[in-house]
Amino acid sequence: YAPTRCAAAQTSVEQSILPPCHHHEAVHDPQLVPCTCPLFSCPWEGHLEVVVSHLRQTHRINILQGAEIVFLATDMHLPAPTDWIIMHSCLGHQFLLVLRKQEKYEGHPQFFATMMLIGTPTQADNFTYRLELNRNQRRLKWEATPRSVLECVDSVISDGDCLVLNTSLAQLFSDNGSLAIGIAITTSKVHNAEDEM
Amino acid sequence: YAPTRCAAAQTSVEQSILPPCHHHEAVHDPQLVPCTCPLFSCPWEGHLEVVVSHLRQTHRINILQGAEIVFLATDMHLPAPTDWIIMHSCLGHQFLLVLRKQEKYEGHPQFFATMMLIGTPTQADNFTYRLELNRNQRRLKWEATPRSVLECVDSVISDGDCLVLNTSLAQLFSDNGSLAIGIAITTSKVHNAEDEM
Repeated sequence: YAPTRCAAAQTSVEQSILPPCHHHEAVHDPQLVPCTCPLFSCPWEGHLEVVVSHLRQTHRINILQGAEIVFLATDMHLPAPTDWIIMHSCLGHQFLLVLRKQEKYEGHPQFFATMMLIGTPTQADNFTYRLELNRNQRRLKWEATPRSVLECVDSVISDGDCLVLNTSLAQLFSDNGSLAIGIAITTSKVHNAEDEM
Repeated sequence: YAPTRCAAAQTSVEQSILPPCHHHEAVHDPQLVPCTCPLFSCPWEGHLEVVVSHLRQTHRINILQGAEIVFLATDMHLPAPTDWIIMHSCLGHQFLLVLRKQEKYEGHPQFFATMMLIGTPTQADNFTYRLELNRNQRRLKWEATPRSVLECVDSVISDGDCLVLNTSLAQLFSDNGSLAIGIAITTSKVHNAEDEM
């Protein structure tokens, strides 16, 4: 297993240490979505088609391209709550990886990682994403259907329906304070056929 | 992915609800090991070669055979602490799967799963074990080197160096209160060659 390693795929510390945003409760035009970036309390709203350019231009979120990429999240020691964000362009769509350090139980931060499609829930059902950690003779893989950014990333994480890492495991997979997360997206037709053991 | 499904691989509820044992502090003969079964406060000690027969005869732990097996842990709703135990016979050795429900953070039980070789740490280094959950279009795989039963399973779990599941994720992977865990053992030569992304 040797995915393309993409260097310098870090979000900046300045972005990361800002508190997660709270989306607007009311969206008047059903075609409009609020800013999907969980880093900021951002007043922006717009159509799905322009979410990517908003994230790139306003929030300076990087895009990585390729079927299999590696996202390097640096400074894992930063205090909770912290988010690491990257966009992944693949199979004609853009996906948003959110890695969040959060204290669900006070004094015990955990890491939560999930992928959201920048698209509708119906579109999201066509894909499977895989997150993989591999270090120190340990390997952890999580595969699931991405959620749509029209759903709130906060609820995905509070439901625990994502890759969850305790601090001890995150340290085992980290190298010099950085966590390399292998990411792959596939269409879910094959996955469905072989689903359920 | 379709491993052999082994039916009726449950430990009994009577065993499961007993508290985990605390191993003896002093082992006088270095060739002797205490009972490695984490279910019981068992006064037995003996040589490594007779641990398997002790576990079978005294604690009625089942043995599953085959390169890839499925262990079905039932009654996941039982209160913490609870252990589910199975032995896995593979590649000329016996391995002990321990699935433990425990409250590391009060009021928030988690599930911890690890495999131990019934053998020495040097022997354990020759193997890689994989635990896999697969349900509801989600898949979680954990691969690592097994520990030796000469090390304490309690410390492996308290270190968090194992597969860890929050209750919410355990429920997503459960079917009617039961969790099917796919288990595979391989020799670790190939694993080492392709190690580290």
